Amino acid sequence: MSYKNFPMVPRVIFGRGSFNQLSEILEPKRLSINSPFIYLIDDVFRNNDGLLSRISLAYDDKIFYISTKEEPKTSQVDALVEEIILMTKERPSGIIGIGGGSVLDLAKAVSLLLTNDGGAKDYQGWDLVKNEAIYHVGIPTLSGTGAEVSRTAVLTGPEKKLGINSDYTPFDQVVLDSELTADVPVEQWFYTGMDCFIHCVESLNGSYLNTFSETYGNMAYELCKEIFLENSLSKVESQEKLMMASWHGGMSIAYSQVGVAHAMSYGLSYLLGTKHGIGNCIVFDYLEEFYPEGVKLFKEMKKIHNIELPQGICSNLSDDEFNIMINIALNLEPLWENALGKNWKQIISAKKLKELYQKM
Amino acid sequence: MSYKNFPMVPRVIFGRGSFNQLSEILEPKRLSINSPFIYLIDDVFRNNDGLLSRISLAYDDKIFYISTKEEPKTSQVDALVEEIILMTKERPSGIIGIGGGSVLDLAKAVSLLLTNDGGAKDYQGWDLVKNEAIYHVGIPTLSGTGAEVSRTAVLTGPEKKLGINSDYTPFDQVVLDSELTADVPVEQWFYTGMDCFIHCVESLNGSYLNTFSETYGNMAYELCKEIFLENSLSKVESQEKLMMASWHGGMSIAYSQVGVAHAMSYGLSYLLGTKHGIGNCIVFDYLEEFYPEGVKLFKEMKKIHNIELPQGICSNLSDDEFNIMINIALNLEPLWENALGKNWKQIISAKKLKELYQKM
Repeated sequence: MSYKNFPMVPRVIFGRGSFNQLSEILEPKRLSINSPFIYLIDDVFRNNDGLLSRISLAYDDKIFYISTKEEPKTSQVDALVEEIILMTKERPSGIIGIGGGSVLDLAKAVSLLLTNDGGAKDYQGWDLVKNEAIYHVGIPTLSGTGAEVSRTAVLTGPEKKLGINSDYTPFDQVVLDSELTADVPVEQWFYTGMDCFIHCVESLNGSYLNTFSETYGNMAYELCKEIFLENSLSKVESQEKLMMASWHGGMSIAYSQVGVAHAMSYGLSYLLGTKHGIGNCIVFDYLEEFYPEGVKLFKEMKKIHNIELPQGICSNLSDDEFNIMINIALNLEPLWENALGKNWKQIISAKKLKELYQKM
Repeated sequence: MSYKNFPMVPRVIFGRGSFNQLSEILEPKRLSINSPFIYLIDDVFRNNDGLLSRISLAYDDKIFYISTKEEPKTSQVDALVEEIILMTKERPSGIIGIGGGSVLDLAKAVSLLLTNDGGAKDYQGWDLVKNEAIYHVGIPTLSGTGAEVSRTAVLTGPEKKLGINSDYTPFDQVVLDSELTADVPVEQWFYTGMDCFIHCVESLNGSYLNTFSETYGNMAYELCKEIFLENSLSKVESQEKLMMASWHGGMSIAYSQVGVAHAMSYGLSYLLGTKHGIGNCIVFDYLEEFYPEGVKLFKEMKKIHNIELPQGICSNLSDDEFNIMINIALNLEPLWENALGKNWKQIISAKKLKELYQKM
């Protein structure tokens, strides 16, 4: 048996207002005046002076605003990398991602593709990256995805939705300032929080689980219950705890994997462009047979927070379209093996997946 | 407010038998054939072929066996560093500590003193280290101290017992193989496990606590209760869970501090050479007024595991000796501030400490 030597984020700063310390963290990392810091920022912050005024741009530093209407794409990574190469005199000093999971994953992928030849799609998979990324910093403004701590950067490519999973993917620095999550709309807060909850359910019920991942998963699971079920925390406590739930939930995947909901939700994203958080929720709602306890709690949480999920999103799909989703989902073999064990192919079939998708 | 940018161990491998992967982890880190790996190994393993046969020595690699009858000393670090400098043609490729907290702290300190001038005592304190350490690896064979994940290396010096606290202190790599803890005698298992439990009580009840540290502390606290109170786990489960409790307990100190028990136990260690684990237990047993719930649980755990603590270790001390212990303890200002708040000097006095020590 060979165990994974897991890469952890080597620096983390936690606290309300810690975003104020960003310049002081970055400045020692500047390689030269020709080597800028590149900021990828969710474009919801485009006019947010409260945030932008605290970013000090010097020399050739540049901000790219990122639309997150769609899931991040390999082509988007390639275009950003090309633009950065053309505009910079020297390799950048660092990439700073400020946003939700989409922006964080883009930042990770861009930092990898600046030191690795070819296109982002060439690295979708496990351990295909050859060279260390450039210095990259993750600053979540949404809690739940675990992207701030994971060794993957999930992208939709021409042929598949799949992460760039590698030891070089994790951020070199993370800033956990829960104040940045204060203005998230309630639906997005719920969907992204449920990404964490579903991570935990899938990890804790998976065959890959070991004690390392179990302890992180349990902690995040309990925090999610406290936040979404008990619903008695102050706003600040809730923001801080969800930020930590996301962090620990991401760590619980270290020696584990996600499962059925994530596999099927990748199918929805690939075909329909469904965003990851809501896609997970749409799928998870129908997975009682795989995760009875988790789905029961999820339905209670939905009710408490008056969340209405879209219905019938698969009702007008053709057989070819169903097959595309099913193939995307079934190709995620580690997720199925984790969820259902080594003999998963005897449990799950294209027919079964189609029946499930048809309900959604 | 300025938050600490906390350094985390950047690589961790977890699993029973993961120690077998040590050579494969180290080999890419070898700088040259003249640049050896130096192993510091607890001398209880001196004739343990099961462990030693899995360490592959090449070129000038060398093992130093470390007696842990006494707490690690600054003079011991200096002597090791001198011997290593004299015997090596080039700076070592790495220091590998295999043992309990004492050996791990020695390994951290030696790796720091190989790149920083002067003696170990010059760096006892907070953030006094100037240069990065050489590559250093921690492999705990006892669970509870948190030394595998902390940013301190606690040493007894000529004037004080105090850690080398710095961003360069944490290990570059940790191997968490709970099989290595299988042969620990029950008293040592208990005392070291209680180090973790007491960490958590002190961190969770401290004024420095924030949500980051709280979530780690809660997880470790719950694990300790499961292991030592419920007492229904298999041996393997118990070993794995205590290894994770130690890890998370160590992380809970990131934005927190230990408290009264640690401060007073440092006094005992300095004057009487009491080992850290048992010293914490001796002190904690008399701290109901500071930690009522924690001390109550501790007494139950002692009973369940038939642990008899030494009594009367301070009964023959002179006033001068009491004063030495009291001064060592009171000088640990951050610990008292964490435990009792900013006005701790109005709550605790030399007289109060003497009364407490006299009971022990």
